[in-house]
Amino acid sequence: MLWFVGLGVSGFDSVPARGIDVLARADVVYLEQFTSPVPERDVSRIRDVTGGKLVLAKRWQVEDGAEILKSAKDGEAVLLSYGDPYIATTHIELRTRAAAQGTATGAIHASSALTAIVGECGLHFYKVGRVATIMGGESFATPYRTLYKNMAEGGHTILLLEYDQERDFFLDPSDALAGLLEAEKGQARRVIGESTYCIIASRIGSEDQRITAGMISSLAGTDFGSPPHTVIIPGSLHFTESDALGSTCRCVDAPAGNTVEKISAQMIAKYVPMVRAALEEAKSMYAGKYDDVLENAEMYIRDAEKFLADGHDEVAVLSIGYADGLVDALRMAGGLEPKM
Amino acid sequence: MLWFVGLGVSGFDSVPARGIDVLARADVVYLEQFTSPVPERDVSRIRDVTGGKLVLAKRWQVEDGAEILKSAKDGEAVLLSYGDPYIATTHIELRTRAAAQGTATGAIHASSALTAIVGECGLHFYKVGRVATIMGGESFATPYRTLYKNMAEGGHTILLLEYDQERDFFLDPSDALAGLLEAEKGQARRVIGESTYCIIASRIGSEDQRITAGMISSLAGTDFGSPPHTVIIPGSLHFTESDALGSTCRCVDAPAGNTVEKISAQMIAKYVPMVRAALEEAKSMYAGKYDDVLENAEMYIRDAEKFLADGHDEVAVLSIGYADGLVDALRMAGGLEPKM
Repeated sequence: MLWFVGLGVSGFDSVPARGIDVLARADVVYLEQFTSPVPERDVSRIRDVTGGKLVLAKRWQVEDGAEILKSAKDGEAVLLSYGDPYIATTHIELRTRAAAQGTATGAIHASSALTAIVGECGLHFYKVGRVATIMGGESFATPYRTLYKNMAEGGHTILLLEYDQERDFFLDPSDALAGLLEAEKGQARRVIGESTYCIIASRIGSEDQRITAGMISSLAGTDFGSPPHTVIIPGSLHFTESDALGSTCRCVDAPAGNTVEKISAQMIAKYVPMVRAALEEAKSMYAGKYDDVLENAEMYIRDAEKFLADGHDEVAVLSIGYADGLVDALRMAGGLEPKM
Repeated sequence: MLWFVGLGVSGFDSVPARGIDVLARADVVYLEQFTSPVPERDVSRIRDVTGGKLVLAKRWQVEDGAEILKSAKDGEAVLLSYGDPYIATTHIELRTRAAAQGTATGAIHASSALTAIVGECGLHFYKVGRVATIMGGESFATPYRTLYKNMAEGGHTILLLEYDQERDFFLDPSDALAGLLEAEKGQARRVIGESTYCIIASRIGSEDQRITAGMISSLAGTDFGSPPHTVIIPGSLHFTESDALGSTCRCVDAPAGNTVEKISAQMIAKYVPMVRAALEEAKSMYAGKYDDVLENAEMYIRDAEKFLADGHDEVAVLSIGYADGLVDALRMAGGLEPKM
């Protein structure tokens, strides 16, 4: 039998009651620490309740899995890990392999940083969009894009920061934010800037947890203490979220949400007045000619605004593009500059 | 002091070790059951460890909060609830009010259905998009839209189904899916149909949990057993996700992901050939005239395809709209039908 037991977010204190029984009964317990470090004090409490052998498993031992699967075939084995066990995709793979060799599996779920952090910050979980992971050495294009997508829908974004157990390396929140600001320069979707409101959740679940919030510019140079840290960039804030953040976290600036204008809305805002002006010039140039084309252009400009207001973003963009094309064809034909 | 203690997903078995201490020490424990019912067996085990008074709190008592806040001011009070406590926005509000009256608060985080369900199904949590809630009596437009947004990014969607403790009402998974199919008829984004692959996670965390998966048409008439149920509509599946689902869940059809073509991609697929054909007609009509307009149209058609391939969806749609407008202006001016 192979058990996946979660340590939860508070070390030994957050192991579910039933998980303790499983640890006591097992022949061998593999303690995995590569998702998040487990304090020495907790390791010794785990050792105390573990009935069989306790193995401090290396990352390769869990990824390779051969020894763990053999132990689980021969007896009762436990893989004990931070948070809720199946959040780590490595564990899901191990479960599949156990099933393939005919070994029964079971999980003792425990608290996860994902839900705990959002709640501690006072944010509504149903507003959280897709989680982004930030690796120091990799491109920030993907997390930047995830942030845009979430924020365009008013959602919050959790940014999980790189942790490498072997190098004892945690990506610093400031470096993560600096990387996103750099991505903004390249992609220019107006997603993030110095005035973006951020929340840094540090050591959630431990006794010295702390949540610091404020604009990126205000947080510069702040010492968030020892890791782990998680960054949350909120989207729009409901007043109960602002109140919760303000009353229970250390806010350098008053709680504020972030908004991004969707690319489609940015386009309509830019092109509608531009195409209208181009249309007026074309009208006076042709004075009574090509009325059907000009009327169509006028209609599609209005449609673009209406479709955007109704949430049909793509049709709105298609409409303003079409109106622009109608007008520009006449302008080009008449010797005027096109306005695309 | 006001404690928020999570029961986790497995009733008393999933209360963290430290949570038991808090229950034993408290003057009064309010057990909240409106998020999910707590089996009688667990209630009696909770009663056994509770040192002070145990109150089976009604929904209004938690929402009103006056009694709980008074107890927390006078002594040590616990609000004990299913899952991880701060997932319920009502609890976050109560914490804010406690802070406002100068009462200290603390949380004992526990396993949440959100992370447990995703893991039990073998799905990768970082691919989960925004959670949708389905209320039987309300419009399905919002969950339908959330599903589209998540799926367009390849993400999975968790659909939480309505539960009303007072009426002992759980929304049936089949009714939730039927409502989404109905929304598809109205909105026609090609998001969901009879062949959409769905996962029904039933009673996760309990001893008789079961996960059933298959196409909507194959699941029709299936008895999923007693509630609670949660529906997950997966986006694209990584092979480790398919393997996990196939090896540990009851799959009526072989595991398969779902894809939706983004509206922008649907538009490019429809308009590019249409505008190309219209352009050819216009070319032969004008034979050598308005070459600049026609060349521009050709260029913007190519751009539309390129922008889409590069992930610049809005610019792609703007480009094909513009090309269409250029061509149609010439067609209208020449007496041909426009092709928008």
